[in-house]
Amino acid sequence: MQIRKAEPRDAAAIAEIILPTFREGSTYTVDPDISEADARAYWLSPDKETFVAEDAGVIVGTYIMRPNQAGGGRHVCNCGYMTRAGATGRGIARAMCLHSLDHARSRGYRAMQFNFVVATNERALRLWQSLGFEIVGRLPGAFRHPVHGYVDALVMYQTLKGKSP
Amino acid sequence: MQIRKAEPRDAAAIAEIILPTFREGSTYTVDPDISEADARAYWLSPDKETFVAEDAGVIVGTYIMRPNQAGGGRHVCNCGYMTRAGATGRGIARAMCLHSLDHARSRGYRAMQFNFVVATNERALRLWQSLGFEIVGRLPGAFRHPVHGYVDALVMYQTLKGKSP
Repeated sequence: MQIRKAEPRDAAAIAEIILPTFREGSTYTVDPDISEADARAYWLSPDKETFVAEDAGVIVGTYIMRPNQAGGGRHVCNCGYMTRAGATGRGIARAMCLHSLDHARSRGYRAMQFNFVVATNERALRLWQSLGFEIVGRLPGAFRHPVHGYVDALVMYQTLKGKSP
Repeated sequence: MQIRKAEPRDAAAIAEIILPTFREGSTYTVDPDISEADARAYWLSPDKETFVAEDAGVIVGTYIMRPNQAGGGRHVCNCGYMTRAGATGRGIARAMCLHSLDHARSRGYRAMQFNFVVATNERALRLWQSLGFEIVGRLPGAFRHPVHGYVDALVMYQTLKGKSP
């Protein structure tokens, strides 16, 4: 599996990954009725770096990185990861997160923050913890889950060792 | 003092309040070099509700409200408040925050979240706590303060009682 910067030709494959996730509405705070054009624009906007994980010519995952805040907060990055339906359980999200941590260091970021990990997303939560993220905040009832109703969201954070700006 | 929706004619007075705060760079995660046009566009963008506090014909403060997240997170609002230089210490921020809490309830929001309260901004921190906000998260070193260097930022949250959506 290769992880590389997304190219314009990847847009359709990326849409096939992100649209079902947005539609399902249980992990990302994006309008489930977002149009395909808006979803593509969101994931591939110029303020983000977009990557894809490619396995035997198939795009099996994608992630985005951006500064989490501007001004005095721009040394902390934020990422979002998605694995293609049917490709979960193969370590793709883990590989993308590790790639993103390396990339963040190389770009001079001093920390990575996830603003909104839905508390019911236990697999993601365990994965991020195993990769060094700590729960630094809990937002009570901040997410309306399509099945579970109002559930907490977690703020996760990892200070990056090594190269600094 | 009257707190009301901002009108187009208020834009210049609003810019006189927000630009010095952005330039100083010690409280908001906005690029200190932001242009006046971009600062106005940020504070008065269509995705926000913008209010002003007016005292004897002078705009002495302004605040914004917006959904903090989209999709399953849109029942939590986010606000930002600024008081005119020279008008601090008169309870303007407190009055604006109380107004915003009432307005948020009337709009059906179930909670209000501040994503990034710089830990050195002790006056704001005490004020928000006195108005019912709790510190629900701490982001280590997430803000580069122009004087103090890397300092923590706090996530604050208040569940709103009363009317719900």
